[in-house]
Amino acid sequence: MKYCYGVDIGGTTVKLGLFTDEGKLIEKWEIVTNTENKGEAILPDVCGTIKENINKNKLDKSMIIGLGVGIPGPVDKFGRVKSTANLGWDFKDIKLELEEGLDLPVKVGNDANIAALGEMWVGGGAGYENLIVITLGTGVGGGIIINGRPLVGEHGAGGEIGHMRVNMQEETVCGCGRKGCLEQYASATGIARLARKRLEKDGAPSLLREREVSAKSVFDCLKEGDAIATEIVEEFSGILGDAIASLCVVVDPAVVVIGGGVSKAGEILIQYVKKHFEAVAFFANTELKFALAELGNDAGIYGGAKLILGE
Amino acid sequence: MKYCYGVDIGGTTVKLGLFTDEGKLIEKWEIVTNTENKGEAILPDVCGTIKENINKNKLDKSMIIGLGVGIPGPVDKFGRVKSTANLGWDFKDIKLELEEGLDLPVKVGNDANIAALGEMWVGGGAGYENLIVITLGTGVGGGIIINGRPLVGEHGAGGEIGHMRVNMQEETVCGCGRKGCLEQYASATGIARLARKRLEKDGAPSLLREREVSAKSVFDCLKEGDAIATEIVEEFSGILGDAIASLCVVVDPAVVVIGGGVSKAGEILIQYVKKHFEAVAFFANTELKFALAELGNDAGIYGGAKLILGE
Repeated sequence: MKYCYGVDIGGTTVKLGLFTDEGKLIEKWEIVTNTENKGEAILPDVCGTIKENINKNKLDKSMIIGLGVGIPGPVDKFGRVKSTANLGWDFKDIKLELEEGLDLPVKVGNDANIAALGEMWVGGGAGYENLIVITLGTGVGGGIIINGRPLVGEHGAGGEIGHMRVNMQEETVCGCGRKGCLEQYASATGIARLARKRLEKDGAPSLLREREVSAKSVFDCLKEGDAIATEIVEEFSGILGDAIASLCVVVDPAVVVIGGGVSKAGEILIQYVKKHFEAVAFFANTELKFALAELGNDAGIYGGAKLILGE
Repeated sequence: MKYCYGVDIGGTTVKLGLFTDEGKLIEKWEIVTNTENKGEAILPDVCGTIKENINKNKLDKSMIIGLGVGIPGPVDKFGRVKSTANLGWDFKDIKLELEEGLDLPVKVGNDANIAALGEMWVGGGAGYENLIVITLGTGVGGGIIINGRPLVGEHGAGGEIGHMRVNMQEETVCGCGRKGCLEQYASATGIARLARKRLEKDGAPSLLREREVSAKSVFDCLKEGDAIATEIVEEFSGILGDAIASLCVVVDPAVVVIGGGVSKAGEILIQYVKKHFEAVAFFANTELKFALAELGNDAGIYGGAKLILGE
């Protein structure tokens, strides 16, 4: 039996998992991400906690295949980053620094791409090798897998589908500085924005008027049969279904896996998005399947393990 | 020295090229595509003309690496098609039929993807391995190359970028049966349609009123300083620049290569599209390069050769 580590470096915590080479998660744990002094302690801390784990489990280095590591930002093909705002980093040669620190092989990638690899391996995309994972959280993230490998792109920015422009008439500015990005309508924040706009439009009665407006309360009210919440979900899923139709003529995946906080709404989310997708899909994409992500916050460590075990 | 053949099967003619394994085109020729009786003669005709060429050039089979073949439609990963309307085919196992007919290795792919491979190899995308080739002809075709390999997709329909939906308000139906596809604005036919709509809007004087309205005459009048032609090109390149910006957040290429009949307009086309792209591009894609396709109708045979020589 051999082993590997999956590591998911986020802005608040670093998630780590020890896996067998057959993909079984043996243990997982977290450490705090120390972003002080331009995040200079982050990689030494990762090395330290992995060394401790190796010692604790009495593993010999020859039994360890290596580490797969996810980073919240674009990573080039050499495992380096130009800058990663969430971690405080300017240029950093992550692969080199970790390999020198641990004397183990390391592969590094963008966290969204790696999470998609995890969902392909043992999650909502299991059994497929052409898939798109769409993460509907505070923003809209994406990971695209083609023939079992992440679509990384020339600058490590492949799969940034939250910034497809879907509305040329939008006047509010997106976090990226442009206007009309998918993220402005399909993220948790975006759904709440659509909801507030709808509620302000007229005085129509709605359960939402008695609650804090959020993506969660919109879907809760939808499930309770609220007409205004239904309208809002129709608008959101119309925009997302359209964007998925455009994505599919480009990428032609077998399955779209939807994750992130918004996906906690469950199957009803898939039903609405699928309905709108099918109304506008290109004929070659009509067999597309939809699935919910299954790994939640563990997608990154699973994907990291898969990355080092071989895509 | 070894050799290979690149074959581009179109609805009217089959183009063929004999190449060295270093990518030198030795000779090229065409035969008519016989689409009668569900196109049953097409593959036997290809085998026949290649056998003749082998004999004429006194090549030994051991000297021939194989054939790379492009087909105008989706091709699965086994080299088979479900149906190819332009050729009259229903299901056909192209790879098997050609390998049995010629006793040589064969690889088969979609013609747009293979043309993109040709442009990457020795054309407008030479030196890059992440690129998008956009063909602005009667329709809008696309070929996407990731890490030197065509993005084929699950159903062989990857890169069908002409059917990205760019206008949800469109009322005219696209050839695919949907409304608002990129092809309705950015193909030669689409540019002529934009031009006619603009000319009908008011009575503003324009050189175009004295000519047959076409993509070519629009660009000719632009070059002559015509204000209305300039407006039409601004509208076309605004739509195309926007679509390229959305494509780039998904695929993150190094270069976009523009080919097809419309690209005969030359560098001025690139200037307009680039200007509009840059106005709306995501920050990670601002280093994108633009180039004109260089291989014209030979892109398919070059790409076929590259396909069999190894992507």
